[in-house]
Amino acid sequence: MNIVVQKFGGTSVANLECMSKVKEKVMVPLKQGKKVAIVLSAMAGETNRLIKLAHEWSKNPDPSELDVLLSTGEQVSIALFTMLLKDAGIKARSFLGYQIPIRTDRDFGKARILDVDAEKLKQYFSIYDVLVIAGFQGCDCENRITTLGRGGSDTSAVALAAALKAEICEIYTDVDGVYTTDPNICSSARRIDKIAYDEMLEMASMGAKVLQIRSVEFAKKYNVPILVRSTFTDGPGTLVTQEDENMESAMVSGIAYDKDQARITLVDVYDKPGIAANIFEPIAAAGIVVDMIVQNPSRNGATDMTFTVPKGDMEKTIQILKKIAPNLGTKDILTDKNVAKVSVIGVGMRNHAGVAAIAFSALRKEHINIMIISTSEIKISCLIEEKYTELAVRTLHEAFGLDQV
Amino acid sequence: MNIVVQKFGGTSVANLECMSKVKEKVMVPLKQGKKVAIVLSAMAGETNRLIKLAHEWSKNPDPSELDVLLSTGEQVSIALFTMLLKDAGIKARSFLGYQIPIRTDRDFGKARILDVDAEKLKQYFSIYDVLVIAGFQGCDCENRITTLGRGGSDTSAVALAAALKAEICEIYTDVDGVYTTDPNICSSARRIDKIAYDEMLEMASMGAKVLQIRSVEFAKKYNVPILVRSTFTDGPGTLVTQEDENMESAMVSGIAYDKDQARITLVDVYDKPGIAANIFEPIAAAGIVVDMIVQNPSRNGATDMTFTVPKGDMEKTIQILKKIAPNLGTKDILTDKNVAKVSVIGVGMRNHAGVAAIAFSALRKEHINIMIISTSEIKISCLIEEKYTELAVRTLHEAFGLDQV
Repeated sequence: MNIVVQKFGGTSVANLECMSKVKEKVMVPLKQGKKVAIVLSAMAGETNRLIKLAHEWSKNPDPSELDVLLSTGEQVSIALFTMLLKDAGIKARSFLGYQIPIRTDRDFGKARILDVDAEKLKQYFSIYDVLVIAGFQGCDCENRITTLGRGGSDTSAVALAAALKAEICEIYTDVDGVYTTDPNICSSARRIDKIAYDEMLEMASMGAKVLQIRSVEFAKKYNVPILVRSTFTDGPGTLVTQEDENMESAMVSGIAYDKDQARITLVDVYDKPGIAANIFEPIAAAGIVVDMIVQNPSRNGATDMTFTVPKGDMEKTIQILKKIAPNLGTKDILTDKNVAKVSVIGVGMRNHAGVAAIAFSALRKEHINIMIISTSEIKISCLIEEKYTELAVRTLHEAFGLDQV
Repeated sequence: MNIVVQKFGGTSVANLECMSKVKEKVMVPLKQGKKVAIVLSAMAGETNRLIKLAHEWSKNPDPSELDVLLSTGEQVSIALFTMLLKDAGIKARSFLGYQIPIRTDRDFGKARILDVDAEKLKQYFSIYDVLVIAGFQGCDCENRITTLGRGGSDTSAVALAAALKAEICEIYTDVDGVYTTDPNICSSARRIDKIAYDEMLEMASMGAKVLQIRSVEFAKKYNVPILVRSTFTDGPGTLVTQEDENMESAMVSGIAYDKDQARITLVDVYDKPGIAANIFEPIAAAGIVVDMIVQNPSRNGATDMTFTVPKGDMEKTIQILKKIAPNLGTKDILTDKNVAKVSVIGVGMRNHAGVAAIAFSALRKEHINIMIISTSEIKISCLIEEKYTELAVRTLHEAFGLDQV
C-alpha cells in the first residue's frame, strides 16, 4: 500500500474556493491508486479568534481548557473538508487526535507527540481512500485533548508520515518552496530544489518560516522526506531530505536573517567557573530564549559576556541581570536593540575552506561592521546593525553565487 | 456524596454576562457542600451558524461529519466556562462526550443514549467539585462523535442525573417554569409548581417547548426529578416529577395548542382490513409525523379517514396519497391548512367525570366549531379553525379555573 501524507495550512483551508484547490491536490495521488492521509490546520484566523475569546473570558486561561477550545478549529476544518470529498464520491472519513490516537505528553499548549497508532489507521485504509486528520492536536494518557503549539500541524503530518511509512510528506502552504533567501528583500532569491534537514533547521529557526522547526527535527529522526509546495500553483516545490553528495558540492544553500534580536553585554564579569551558568540559568528559568552567546578570553581576571535575546524579552532580561549583577562583579550592562543577525548556511561548508572569509570580505566591501560572530558546522552568523540587514543579505547572496541558476 | 446536575441552554451561555449568572447558580449547591455536574449547550446561534456553514460547503452534508462539526459548539462552551470557574478558584474540569463516555447508537444527528459510565465520573468528583460536561453529544462504539438532535442537551442532563443518581436535575432556561398555558396569548397563565411526567410529555409535544420530549421520557423511566428554572431570576421553577395524590385533585393542569397542523381527509376509502396501514406506512416511510387520526364507522362499505400532519409536510403527503389513491378507492382528498389543535391536559382527568363536557361547552359558548376530537387518558384534543386558537385557549383556561391561584 502506497501512502502519501498531505498537510494543508490555514490559508489553504480558509474558504470554499481554497478548499477546492486542496481537493485537486488530493486527487493527484488518488488517481495514481495511492491512499492519502490529509492533515488540516484550522481556517486562517480561527485559532487567533479563539485565543482572543479565551482572553476575554479569563484573565489567565487554564492551559488544558484552552486546548479543548483551540482544538475545535481543526475539528471544523476536517468535518467540512470531508463533506466536500464525500460530495465528490470519494470514500473519506475524518479523524480527531484521540480517535487515532495521536498520544502526547501532558504539556498542554505545547505537547510533544509520544506515539501514533498506525495499525488502526492502516486498517481504515481498507475502507476509506482518504483519511482527513485534524492537525495540531493529540490526547494525553487520560484522553484529554492536547495541542502541539503554533505550526504544530506540520509536526502532526510528519509524525503520521513516519508512523504510516508514507512515501512522502507533502506540506502545502502559500509559498512554492524554500528560497535561498527572503524574496521580499532580495529579488534574485531562487527556490531551492533540495535541501538537507540540517540546513532546513538552520533556515527555519532564523526566519524562513515555512516549516515548524520541530517537524523538521522529527522528519530527520525518522528519515521522512518532506516536499514543501504551494496549494495555489503547480511548481515542483522544495524537497527536504537527507544530505547527499550533490548537496555538498554547493558551498552555501541560503542566507537567513533575523531582526528580532537584542544585544546585551555584561562588562567585566568575574572570569571564574560557574559564572556562565549563574547568568543563563535564571534567564532560562524565565522562559527567555538566548540565541548567540560570545565570551572573549579574559584580561586581568575579568571578561565581557555578550549575548542576544528576542527584542520583546530584553527588558525582562535586564531586570533579571540587575538582581544577580552584584554576584557577577559586572561594572555595567550595555544593551542595543538596533541589531540583526545574518547567517550563511550550507552543509557544503564542511568540505570547503574559506566560506567565512568570503562572507566577511563581502560585508567589509559594504562597510558593514560585525559585532558578534558565531559559527556552527554548517552556519556562520554575524550580528550587525539592523539598518544594514537587507544590504547584508543581498551582498552575501551575491557573494556565494546564489543568484545564479 | 450529594450530586446535583444543572443544565444551561444556549441563551444562558450566550455571552460572558450570562455566564456570570450561570456561575451564581452553580455556587448554590457548591456552598451546601454538594458536587455539581454541569451540562452546557452551544452558545445561542452557534449551532445554526455551523449548520449554515455545512450547507454552504456541501449540497448534502454527510451526517457523521455534520456531527463532528456541530459538536464543536458545546466544546467551546465547556472550555470557556471551565476557565471562568478556575479563575474563581473552583476545582473544575471539562468533559466531552467521548471522555466520559456517553455511549450512543450510530444514528448520527439524532442518536440515542445507550449508556453513561458514571463510575469514572464519580471518581473524578474526588478531584473536582464541578464537572463541566458538553451536552448534545456522545460517541458510538467506534468513538465517533454523535449528536442527540435539537434540544439534546436536556436528554444529556437527565441521563447524567440518572447515572450519577443525582438528587435533582435542574434545567435552566430563559423562562421561569412551565405555565398553565402560553402567557403570550393568555395573560392569566400561571406558573405550575409541580407537574407529572405524563402531563409534561403532553405539554412538551404540543408547543410548550421548555424541555425536549425525550428528556422527559428518560426522566420518567429512571424517575429523575427535573426542576425547570430561569437562569436570570430566582423563582422556584416547576418540578417535573412522579404523579402524586395532590396532583390528581386538580382536574386539569394546562392548556396546550399547536398551530403547525394541516388536516387531510380521504373521502370514501374502502372499509377493509389493512387500509389504514396502506395509508400510513408510506407516509411514515417519508419521515412525516402524523398527529391526530380519526376514522368514523363506515356506511355502505366506505369510510372517511381524517388526519393531521405538520403544515410543511402537507404537499409531500398529498403527493404520496395520490400515488396510492387508486388502491384505496378514495373519491377525493380534502385538505385544510387553516387549522390548529388545542388540548386540555391533566392526570386528574382519570378520576374526574365530565372534563370533556366542560371543554366542549366552553368552546360552544364562543361558537368555535370542533372538526376533530381525539382523546387519551390524560388529554383531550380538538382540531379547530386556526383563527380561533387564542380565543379557544383563553376560554378553556378560564373554564377549568386555571387562572385561579
